[in-house]
Amino acid sequence: MTSSAELRVALLARSNFPAPGTEVTCAVSGGADSLALLVLAVAAGCRVTAAHVDHGLRAGSAAEAEVVAAAAERLGAGFRGLRADVTPGPNLEARARRARYAVLPPDVLTGHTADDQAETVLVNLCWGAGLDGLAGMAPEGHPLLGLRRSETAALCAAEGLTPVDDPSNADPAFRRNRVRHEALPLLADIAQRDVAAVVARQAALLRADADLLDGLAATIDPTDARALAAAPVALARRAVRRWLTTPAASGHHPPDAAAVERVLSVARGEVRATEVTGIGRVSRSGGRLAFDASYRHAGG
Amino acid sequence: MTSSAELRVALLARSNFPAPGTEVTCAVSGGADSLALLVLAVAAGCRVTAAHVDHGLRAGSAAEAEVVAAAAERLGAGFRGLRADVTPGPNLEARARRARYAVLPPDVLTGHTADDQAETVLVNLCWGAGLDGLAGMAPEGHPLLGLRRSETAALCAAEGLTPVDDPSNADPAFRRNRVRHEALPLLADIAQRDVAAVVARQAALLRADADLLDGLAATIDPTDARALAAAPVALARRAVRRWLTTPAASGHHPPDAAAVERVLSVARGEVRATEVTGIGRVSRSGGRLAFDASYRHAGG
Repeated sequence: MTSSAELRVALLARSNFPAPGTEVTCAVSGGADSLALLVLAVAAGCRVTAAHVDHGLRAGSAAEAEVVAAAAERLGAGFRGLRADVTPGPNLEARARRARYAVLPPDVLTGHTADDQAETVLVNLCWGAGLDGLAGMAPEGHPLLGLRRSETAALCAAEGLTPVDDPSNADPAFRRNRVRHEALPLLADIAQRDVAAVVARQAALLRADADLLDGLAATIDPTDARALAAAPVALARRAVRRWLTTPAASGHHPPDAAAVERVLSVARGEVRATEVTGIGRVSRSGGRLAFDASYRHAGG
Repeated sequence: MTSSAELRVALLARSNFPAPGTEVTCAVSGGADSLALLVLAVAAGCRVTAAHVDHGLRAGSAAEAEVVAAAAERLGAGFRGLRADVTPGPNLEARARRARYAVLPPDVLTGHTADDQAETVLVNLCWGAGLDGLAGMAPEGHPLLGLRRSETAALCAAEGLTPVDDPSNADPAFRRNRVRHEALPLLADIAQRDVAAVVARQAALLRADADLLDGLAATIDPTDARALAAAPVALARRAVRRWLTTPAASGHHPPDAAAVERVLSVARGEVRATEVTGIGRVSRSGGRLAFDASYRHAGG
């Protein structure tokens, strides 16, 4: 039988925490993944604060905060209860996530596992998010991407921690839950292999490809039409996407692939200007590209 | 109502055939995709030979050859009937494909559509094939990747051609059929969009990423341990994979990701040698890496 200490050591070896002594904030909902994150962050020698975010959505969420606070105290970690209200309605999942990250520090650690990574990749595949989407979540901020969800549950059991069961994890209205409960099991049955593990490992390899291309694209000035037109198209697309995702442009979502191609046509002088929905108008003048955000709502 | 000539012109504009006058061989099974390929290759002004491959598997396959020969004659194309017997049994789909490509010229054109591309990408995702697999089929040899399967059927109907219905396309024992009939429809339902089209378009973008990385990796000598150890890991992996996929090494399947990492450990001097299943033993000596295929069956 594996003791909780042995399990902790084994899982820690496959995790990716900052150096001992580093101050970290862990986002802890009280589910198995995030409780395991808390256990392992403490075991990694970090100086840990467990942050619980209450969305004010469910009656039980105050009780969940108490579960997290009790676990943190028992493990010798600090605790912060945060509030980020969201109202029920469309896109609840995405709005709750945004609200959560708005109140958490930017370098917060989350308990996403290889299973979450595979789900993210599959969602991104279906949305056409390109290489960066298929590379899934970056290792930074996600120390448990090498672990399986079942292992975090086993660790909680071994530690005598009883995770909170988030009822929204079973709600098929959330597309991620359908990917988890329907799409990944179907693909695993078709492929006759552990597709979640395969996809998560593949994402880590794609991350290296994406990082290398990012580094190369960063040397291209996207406002220099000639440089953009002369660059390999894979890098030119990337430079345009990064440019139009800066806070001065959209600040949020990258432009879609068709809009990126239109901007490259402007760079090559095939058209003088193009509108990019949600971002503005990109035009060329004297060899330079510029965007004008006042056209933001003009449509593409 | 769209005439057959109008439909031909519209689909041709989204196809990718060689220049008029080029001699091409089209692989034509007699299904809608490959009959449409034949129609469009002729319309593109190529000098076309339709090649039908009989696997000797089904009673109807000789009759299928006659359908293809008749269509070729009507369209003014040449015809070649080829024979590539396969025996029923495991991996029939893959063995039939290999047998087919062994008797067809290497620059054969096939009628794969955007739907086939999406299926290929999803299969490759589940097998962990990396960026190259997610980029799907290259545009070379596949002029119809921009068309949908339904459009090839519409073209056949407009041309008065009756496609052969391949019963193996409905056989759930072939994993590709389950991806087509189960996985892609489920993902489309979850994502509420035309996932096949999204995935196929994304594959074309990933192809540019993969080509760029290939070009960069080609400048690295994979037998130079120091160069390999100093290169960005994304390129070093690619150089090793290409090296161990040459005919002198495995000649067929690329080494798996874990084997590539072990070879990189040898390059960095962390271990002196490693065995790569199906390929041989890779060892380092005097700053050079070499592989010895006599170890091929030693296991990894």
